[in-house]
Amino acid sequence: MRTLLKNAILLVEKDRWETVPRGFLGINDQRIDYLDAIPPAQSYDHEIDLENHLILPGFFNLHAHTGMTSLRGIGSGLPLHRWLKEAMFPREAKFSPSDIQRSSQIAILEMIASGIVSFSDMYIQPWLTAALVETSGMKANLSVPFASKDFSRPEIDQERIDTAVKVFQEYHQSAEERIRIDFAIHAEYTSLKASAQAYSEACQSCGARMHLHLAETEADVKGCIERHGVTPAAFFAGIGTFENPTNAAHCVVLSDADIEILREKGVAAIHNPSSNMKLGSGFMPIRKLMDAGIPVVLGTDSTASNNNLNFLEEIHLASLIHCGAAHDPTILSAEEVLTMATSAGAAAQGRNDTGRLKVGNKADLAIFDLDRPHLMPVHDAPALIVYAAQASDVVCTIVDGKMIYDHGKYLTVDAEKAKADYRQSCARIH
Amino acid sequence: MRTLLKNAILLVEKDRWETVPRGFLGINDQRIDYLDAIPPAQSYDHEIDLENHLILPGFFNLHAHTGMTSLRGIGSGLPLHRWLKEAMFPREAKFSPSDIQRSSQIAILEMIASGIVSFSDMYIQPWLTAALVETSGMKANLSVPFASKDFSRPEIDQERIDTAVKVFQEYHQSAEERIRIDFAIHAEYTSLKASAQAYSEACQSCGARMHLHLAETEADVKGCIERHGVTPAAFFAGIGTFENPTNAAHCVVLSDADIEILREKGVAAIHNPSSNMKLGSGFMPIRKLMDAGIPVVLGTDSTASNNNLNFLEEIHLASLIHCGAAHDPTILSAEEVLTMATSAGAAAQGRNDTGRLKVGNKADLAIFDLDRPHLMPVHDAPALIVYAAQASDVVCTIVDGKMIYDHGKYLTVDAEKAKADYRQSCARIH
Repeated sequence: MRTLLKNAILLVEKDRWETVPRGFLGINDQRIDYLDAIPPAQSYDHEIDLENHLILPGFFNLHAHTGMTSLRGIGSGLPLHRWLKEAMFPREAKFSPSDIQRSSQIAILEMIASGIVSFSDMYIQPWLTAALVETSGMKANLSVPFASKDFSRPEIDQERIDTAVKVFQEYHQSAEERIRIDFAIHAEYTSLKASAQAYSEACQSCGARMHLHLAETEADVKGCIERHGVTPAAFFAGIGTFENPTNAAHCVVLSDADIEILREKGVAAIHNPSSNMKLGSGFMPIRKLMDAGIPVVLGTDSTASNNNLNFLEEIHLASLIHCGAAHDPTILSAEEVLTMATSAGAAAQGRNDTGRLKVGNKADLAIFDLDRPHLMPVHDAPALIVYAAQASDVVCTIVDGKMIYDHGKYLTVDAEKAKADYRQSCARIH
Repeated sequence: MRTLLKNAILLVEKDRWETVPRGFLGINDQRIDYLDAIPPAQSYDHEIDLENHLILPGFFNLHAHTGMTSLRGIGSGLPLHRWLKEAMFPREAKFSPSDIQRSSQIAILEMIASGIVSFSDMYIQPWLTAALVETSGMKANLSVPFASKDFSRPEIDQERIDTAVKVFQEYHQSAEERIRIDFAIHAEYTSLKASAQAYSEACQSCGARMHLHLAETEADVKGCIERHGVTPAAFFAGIGTFENPTNAAHCVVLSDADIEILREKGVAAIHNPSSNMKLGSGFMPIRKLMDAGIPVVLGTDSTASNNNLNFLEEIHLASLIHCGAAHDPTILSAEEVLTMATSAGAAAQGRNDTGRLKVGNKADLAIFDLDRPHLMPVHDAPALIVYAAQASDVVCTIVDGKMIYDHGKYLTVDAEKAKADYRQSCARIH
């Protein structure tokens, strides 16, 4: 099946982002097979006229905890550590596998609707979410996150490590390679050092990627220094964690020496602007990180600290808050934010055949309807998407060439059943 | 015609915000005539079942420049004063009355779609916009904004003052009192002192309200001190401007003495978070202002510095950015932000019969559809609206009891014609 998307504005990232005002994008099965400002010579089975629409690479959400979606709106106004201990952990203790799965299913619906094609998830029992990723048609990097269960019993941590390896072996590259398995360490403050080191070594033995929380708050950094005499970045570097290709969520409180560690080790920094503000953590030193050549990518974090999974909001926040904090409207361009949301995210998931509109790449696309009052005129298309567009302007989401969301309709998931099941689950937990 | 909205979640502001989980709101002609958790005894002509919906007072956008909507996306990345001089003023010089009107019409469509029921506009030739407000069914506080045309010719400023008075006399309380006329001084840095004083006196003689830009950037304040030896707040206090009930947009760079002036004079501060970040101006000291008892309200500013008129975005930004800047998740509650967006805004427009769900008030309402993945569960309804909702969740906007927007359809404006006309206008200007 070959489909031609025609007459759309295309945002194409080469060395720079280029805008094709009226372009043609051909899809052959899973991949882009044509991309130009002139129509193809050959015919396609199916043509879709996208006059007044814009095609972007779909978005990569590098930091999610989909299993806890039902905690949306719980504990508003608490700082990170009280919020975790008083609002989150007691409720999570009540979760059954079905609660986790129902939360993940709603998260998937929400993400698809804002043009997210792939997410990196850090939540227990990832096989529950893997089944949903498979049927939904999305992509995901899942993980068995590590946290020490009982600091006085290091020996029981091995079980989680074994599970992580087993899940890697069973699920990595499954669902036609849409599912990848990462390793994930929740954070320094929830890990025994030796266990985190053993988990990092297991990651390396699998050749997997690492996902972790790093330097989210002043308290994290202070506590780590008290416990280990070094910052979280130095802690993880010291136990070999960063020998794995690593994505570090938050990166709010970093010294220049920390930034140098991240640069040297090739760690990608995941920016979660909503969550960092919502919990009062602060602003990532994004310009310093980017100037150091550290890849910066974007994440929603969970609905519990966001309180949604709307990627256009994260894009918008990332584009604005640093201008405000630095009193400098030039600190970050719209194009840089688009790169964070697309190609940089794909690369940080270890996916080298997506994230850009390019012949040969997987057709992972977000299509925006621009025939709306708030999206006129199209004077500067990247600025329009970053500063003016909303999640609801995404009318189609396409993954591996397959349309999974079309004008509010979910084509791979029974959304009404998912919502009904989820409502039941929420009622039980709260 | 009496209409009953039934089975909706109602957010009712009394001393505190209260959530009625399943409520009934009756509308008789323009006004709310019933509000309770139990159904009314009397029957209504028409009943609308709003199961899984939420009713809020509609939003009050206290700072807009609707006539320049066509400049959306122009001059991204420039700081305020270069942006004004290099990107805005040269294009505005090309505007015909029809360009202004087409821009205002698109702005009205955009505002209605995010639940805005009333806006305060600062743009020349307000009679152009008045005609559109009248037909659209919205409410607006319009103004003939003052700026000195030529600093070497103070005598020509009188003409603008005369026009402002004439417009006040002709349009104030027109369109069934939906239109109110304010006076507006663009800013200290665009005004001769004597002219601004004369304009302020004219405002007072009309008994009107004043709308102005105040202390938007460090450069504004520094320049004012160089020119007049005092801060902008002291400047306007000194020439009597604040003897009028005044709404001051931005209020980013304020000393404690400035805050004391605003408090003493009863000035309301208009928070424009998108614009202040987009132009690198900084963050309003919102907690200090609120703790001083100064009413804080919300505005979008124009699409040229925002780049949209999405009130849910402003609500979301206002709720988050101060938590990030102050490293304090408790600095501003969801309820405080809702008050800024509704009742405080209505009061700052001089409207005392709207802004809250209350029997006897005008039925100015925004109705949200909550049957969406990102709005479940409804654990904390104010937090849900502030942190998770999007403009597209507003499915109906009602002004003076009349539905003007219903599930994407504009009931008072020919949106297709408005968009086509506006596209032509944009093509001519750029």
